Amino acid sequence: MSAVDLQSALSRIRPVDPARMAAIQARLDRQAKPRGSLGRLEEFARRFVAITGREAVRRKVVFTFAGDHGVVDEGVSAFPREVTPQMVYNFLDGGAAINALARHAGAEVIVVDMGVDHQFEPREGLLLKKVGRGTRNFAKGPAMTREEAVRCLETGIELAFWCREQGIDLVGTGDMGIGNTTPSAAVVAAFSALPVAQVTHRGTGIDDAALANKVRVIEQGLRLNLPDPQDPLDVLAKVGGYEIGGIAGLVLGCAAVGSPVVVDGFISTAGALIASELHPHVRDYIFAAHQSVEIGHTHMLERIGQRPILNLDMRLGEGTGGALAMEIIEASLQALREVRTFDDAGVSEGAGE
Amino acid sequence: MSAVDLQSALSRIRPVDPARMAAIQARLDRQAKPRGSLGRLEEFARRFVAITGREAVRRKVVFTFAGDHGVVDEGVSAFPREVTPQMVYNFLDGGAAINALARHAGAEVIVVDMGVDHQFEPREGLLLKKVGRGTRNFAKGPAMTREEAVRCLETGIELAFWCREQGIDLVGTGDMGIGNTTPSAAVVAAFSALPVAQVTHRGTGIDDAALANKVRVIEQGLRLNLPDPQDPLDVLAKVGGYEIGGIAGLVLGCAAVGSPVVVDGFISTAGALIASELHPHVRDYIFAAHQSVEIGHTHMLERIGQRPILNLDMRLGEGTGGALAMEIIEASLQALREVRTFDDAGVSEGAGE
Repeated sequence: MSAVDLQSALSRIRPVDPARMAAIQARLDRQAKPRGSLGRLEEFARRFVAITGREAVRRKVVFTFAGDHGVVDEGVSAFPREVTPQMVYNFLDGGAAINALARHAGAEVIVVDMGVDHQFEPREGLLLKKVGRGTRNFAKGPAMTREEAVRCLETGIELAFWCREQGIDLVGTGDMGIGNTTPSAAVVAAFSALPVAQVTHRGTGIDDAALANKVRVIEQGLRLNLPDPQDPLDVLAKVGGYEIGGIAGLVLGCAAVGSPVVVDGFISTAGALIASELHPHVRDYIFAAHQSVEIGHTHMLERIGQRPILNLDMRLGEGTGGALAMEIIEASLQALREVRTFDDAGVSEGAGE
Repeated sequence: MSAVDLQSALSRIRPVDPARMAAIQARLDRQAKPRGSLGRLEEFARRFVAITGREAVRRKVVFTFAGDHGVVDEGVSAFPREVTPQMVYNFLDGGAAINALARHAGAEVIVVDMGVDHQFEPREGLLLKKVGRGTRNFAKGPAMTREEAVRCLETGIELAFWCREQGIDLVGTGDMGIGNTTPSAAVVAAFSALPVAQVTHRGTGIDDAALANKVRVIEQGLRLNLPDPQDPLDVLAKVGGYEIGGIAGLVLGCAAVGSPVVVDGFISTAGALIASELHPHVRDYIFAAHQSVEIGHTHMLERIGQRPILNLDMRLGEGTGGALAMEIIEASLQALREVRTFDDAGVSEGAGE
């Protein structure tokens, strides 16, 4: 992999060509079915083909970005911090939910250590990209420096360029990091200026008292650090996380290289939101995989302007919703390729067709 | 295939055992993930395994039931009647959306001629089960006789028994029949007593004037035939359709043999509703594939008590939503089989786990 700097990636981002989308829709409209009757499948196929120029997926990868969070010192999570590296090993052994669901979708899983508080040995399926051993506690100061935030983004961007070289046509994002719903809620609160309680939820399963504490901690972090919503790098640095920054970079990089990116749930969408605030046309490349149970997720998706593909009450992260959504996107391409036209099928058209 | 009569099928239907579901949920709760975090995937896996005793699908089939409707004489559809047989040939040639989506899901498509107004020659993938050459126009009298309604149901029941013999663990329903949103809306109006305008929509794409006419036609049919909501066979006979009856029989038969059945959109759910009104425990075996754009669909699903798996603004029928939903159900089983427990994965449990 070779380094790509943030500014040059940003300068490459273009909107998806509406004329290309219209041409694909015209093809869908000639297929022997009531016009538009495949609903959102038609949107997925139209957008995928307009972005990539391809009608089939050669290779699919879910990147699961891992990082630790200083803010867990404030008691914001139901799970202890050591679970982050334990789960990384579980991913590498193929025993986690993302492994099972990626296998079902025919996707590979690549784990990216962005900042786990544990030293990993080199291993197949693991990219060592550590920016630090966990962020600092944002209730007491910035989570990371601005330079670290740029490094996170450039790491993700580099992966997107690598995917293009490798013939990976569909990229999914995922996350692992005990405590990471806390920075994710802080990120959406910082951009939206919504009350913290409106965007903060139970994460892996905290009770009412812990939820009230989590809201207080985020409020304190925002008051202390004053992240500037006009400056997405500042938001990432002050209240974000290393894995969130890696995801933001991957999403931004996918827009730069012209690759669709399937964004998983709450944490991944926090990354996608940072990328979308850095450049408005990033949004065109995002496929929002699913609606998370986390209450702040809806606000993120509204800002990004993408509707989720699935809504299955999931709240696991790892990239699990993204793996499922990839199957739906691929099915939409199969329908585009294989459904015959009214003429070819010898089917009479309806009124208004 | 061998005949099974309606009464003996009804007498075999049992509720799905809650103890079996609880045992599977307990296994899911030991997996290394926050409890319940795979959301509805856990429900799908739990219910599939409790119903079948199996943790993987050997073979999947979508049955696309086809029939014509006398009520098209009233101008209720945007498409001409000859499209029903034309689309049957398209299914048999593998060129329709259901073929593409079933191939993606690894499912077979079997077309069942329940009552198309066309004489088909025997052909691979086509079951000749014609009850009549299209129903009669229900705006002028009953759509079919009570005996024909029973024949429709018993045809579907027979297919469910055949599936069990063949090792088909996941059955999907689908439909083809120009005009068939009209009887489907009439069926839900008959059971729910809701105003016809609240359950009637645009089908394949009719305009405002045609929609108003469709509502009037259904109101007239209900007023004239007075289907008895306490007698589901009467509802099917008076305002239903041959393919709707076949679907109702398949759904009922699946409950009788203990097979999960993935019910597609509006027309399929009309069939599933008739089956559910015939026996309350039929509901336990239904997986509602997707939320149709048709406005009456929500009312049907409420009566059945199942939430749709997908919501992709689809309105095509054929079994297309069912084929997609099968992929999600299979993914849920892969997660059940392959996600390791906290102990096996060496992952620390959280508070409350």
